[in-house]
Amino acid sequence: MKGNIAVLPGDGIGKEVTKGAVEILEAVAQKFGHEFEFQYGEIGGGAIDNTGSPLPDETVDICRKSDAVLLGAVGGPKWDNHPVDIRPERGLLKIRKELNLYANLRPISYYSSLSEASPLKKELIEGADFVIVRELTGGLYFGKPSERVTREGKDAVVDTLFYTKEEMHRIIKLAFELASNRTKKVTSVDKANVLESSRMWRETAEEIAKEYPDVTLEHMLVDNAAMQLIRNPKQFDVVVTENLFGDILSDEASVLTGSLGMLPSASISTNGPNLYEPIHGSAPDIAGQNLANPIATILSAASLLRLSFGLEAEANAVEQAVEAVLEKGFRTGDIADEQSTKLSTSEMVAEIKTVL
Amino acid sequence: MKGNIAVLPGDGIGKEVTKGAVEILEAVAQKFGHEFEFQYGEIGGGAIDNTGSPLPDETVDICRKSDAVLLGAVGGPKWDNHPVDIRPERGLLKIRKELNLYANLRPISYYSSLSEASPLKKELIEGADFVIVRELTGGLYFGKPSERVTREGKDAVVDTLFYTKEEMHRIIKLAFELASNRTKKVTSVDKANVLESSRMWRETAEEIAKEYPDVTLEHMLVDNAAMQLIRNPKQFDVVVTENLFGDILSDEASVLTGSLGMLPSASISTNGPNLYEPIHGSAPDIAGQNLANPIATILSAASLLRLSFGLEAEANAVEQAVEAVLEKGFRTGDIADEQSTKLSTSEMVAEIKTVL
Ligand SMILES: CC(C)[C@H](C(=O)O)[C@@H](O)C(=O)O
Ligand SMILES: CC(C)[C@H](C(=O)O)[C@@H](O)C(=O)O
Repeated sequence: MKGNIAVLPGDGIGKEVTKGAVEILEAVAQKFGHEFEFQYGEIGGGAIDNTGSPLPDETVDICRKSDAVLLGAVGGPKWDNHPVDIRPERGLLKIRKELNLYANLRPISYYSSLSEASPLKKELIEGADFVIVRELTGGLYFGKPSERVTREGKDAVVDTLFYTKEEMHRIIKLAFELASNRTKKVTSVDKANVLESSRMWRETAEEIAKEYPDVTLEHMLVDNAAMQLIRNPKQFDVVVTENLFGDILSDEASVLTGSLGMLPSASISTNGPNLYEPIHGSAPDIAGQNLANPIATILSAASLLRLSFGLEAEANAVEQAVEAVLEKGFRTGDIADEQSTKLSTSEMVAEIKTVL
Repeated sequence: MKGNIAVLPGDGIGKEVTKGAVEILEAVAQKFGHEFEFQYGEIGGGAIDNTGSPLPDETVDICRKSDAVLLGAVGGPKWDNHPVDIRPERGLLKIRKELNLYANLRPISYYSSLSEASPLKKELIEGADFVIVRELTGGLYFGKPSERVTREGKDAVVDTLFYTKEEMHRIIKLAFELASNRTKKVTSVDKANVLESSRMWRETAEEIAKEYPDVTLEHMLVDNAAMQLIRNPKQFDVVVTENLFGDILSDEASVLTGSLGMLPSASISTNGPNLYEPIHGSAPDIAGQNLANPIATILSAASLLRLSFGLEAEANAVEQAVEAVLEKGFRTGDIADEQSTKLSTSEMVAEIKTVL
């Protein structure tokens, strides 16, 4: 098959890890007889420096014309004091809106070969395997008003949590679809004892649950979910929640397995290309030194093959290659211990290519 | 001295644990020559059953006339399907407003005698000792509008995150005061890359920091804070944040040490009595069986002695008695392991009294 992939390396290690993932995609193309074209676009701090905008129109254009988008990471201390509208992460928020990326999927999986890396005791985390489905374009992120106000003569401020029922419906439905193909449990996280939006969320989940009689629906308050993720992460299969709760819980969950540098994510569009990116950030401290772990981005590329191109065998091949290399004891610095063979970014990519 | 203490046992194990704490307060009174009067009030599910309201006016009255309030816990499956306005936890929200309880303080301390109980690897949590200061009366909890709406013909819903600058100022100031008497570091948690309210929060924190040149102020995004609590909880001294972030992070933090049944909290009023309560809930599954761990409530009573009556020596005596009993290997079921001597609620209270 032929595929057009937009590549947005972004800042810091984003450049190195996307380079690695593109090499793997090229190797997959060669091995399985596909043709991928890569178009590069700017996003984040570098884009601000070169164009004044964290997401230039040209980049949006490149993405819209593509079948799938592969993103590295954005941000760095250089842009930390910029006014809020021209910060690198505005590029992320904007691309979500522009491409209608309404759902962010974050699979959290435990790697037995990395059992020492988890902050949790082994018996708690061993075998954990769940997906957090985060709503990505609503809630407090884009609600208006979001501004300074004066109330009874006092300085005050207001932000707005806004959702349409439709927005809730499509994301919760997606979670049920996912759960149908997994172990058939959806944990819907909300704060229904306080928020009206959470009460609508809960009702919507109940309605959708009726269409999926073989999937169990469980409601969990967000404060309890923050506890349960640590106490008993193995209880989860698919967790679905609104934007800000998802932001907090998915970052919390991402450190549980000790393999932040290994975790991919996929953002699903309503109508255009999906976007794939590692969960980790741009890691300015190690950028440009060939030290970054490329695996999260390579696994994001595997999701791209599966979800955007339907190339299941190819996706599996990449995932198995990663596991094989880990089992041989090869590690980048972030996950290395005494027993492992420490590799640079490019060496890790090369090893994965070898076993592909 | 003479003191009036309002006691609100609430539901489930709330009754048993407040009973235990009152016994300890009586023992303290006797030993140190004080006189405490206890007035009992209803709150939560029991109050709904008896009066139709989760917080009857009479209870508010009793609290207002007191010097300090000791609360057990509220809620239970019996009231889970009540309409949202007459649920037990509405009593909690209402009492916060009625008594102007603007700050919730949750000390998280590691007990070396409970080192096995933590879900975290020992080297990560050992020695952790920090306080979460949660704003308790603003933000999304009480902001208006909070309602269903129709937008462009679509069903939708809105909640409102509202703060005055004054509300931010008083809570952040309290955090700096606390930090001055501790290891002099404030971590202010927000989501300034998305929320206007967080940007005002950050500015306010910066302003207050100028008055405390010996206290270090650090800003941390809430998603990162959710990760850092697990990866490196020892980095924290005083964490201050808005209401909902505080709800999530303080529950997350409360499981780190493995001693949920041991953690007290204090809610500080602007102008009236403070309220003291354990962090744990009403635990309907073990209620009425003399199994609950009374220590969190007893330590809450110690905070009451210290903060509401200035009885530092008495508070220390209670805290030391608890530690002594733990060191002897006495445990209630929730924290017991093979080596420990398992006690009932009343036995635990008796042991603490003995060494007081
Ligand atoms: C950079 C920031 C705006 C963003 C978010 O909160 O969505 C990030 O934390 C993420 O999770 O992708
Ligand atoms: C019961 C609920 C409304 C309450 C809150 O969210 O404040 C509880 O979770 C708490 O933390 O005391």
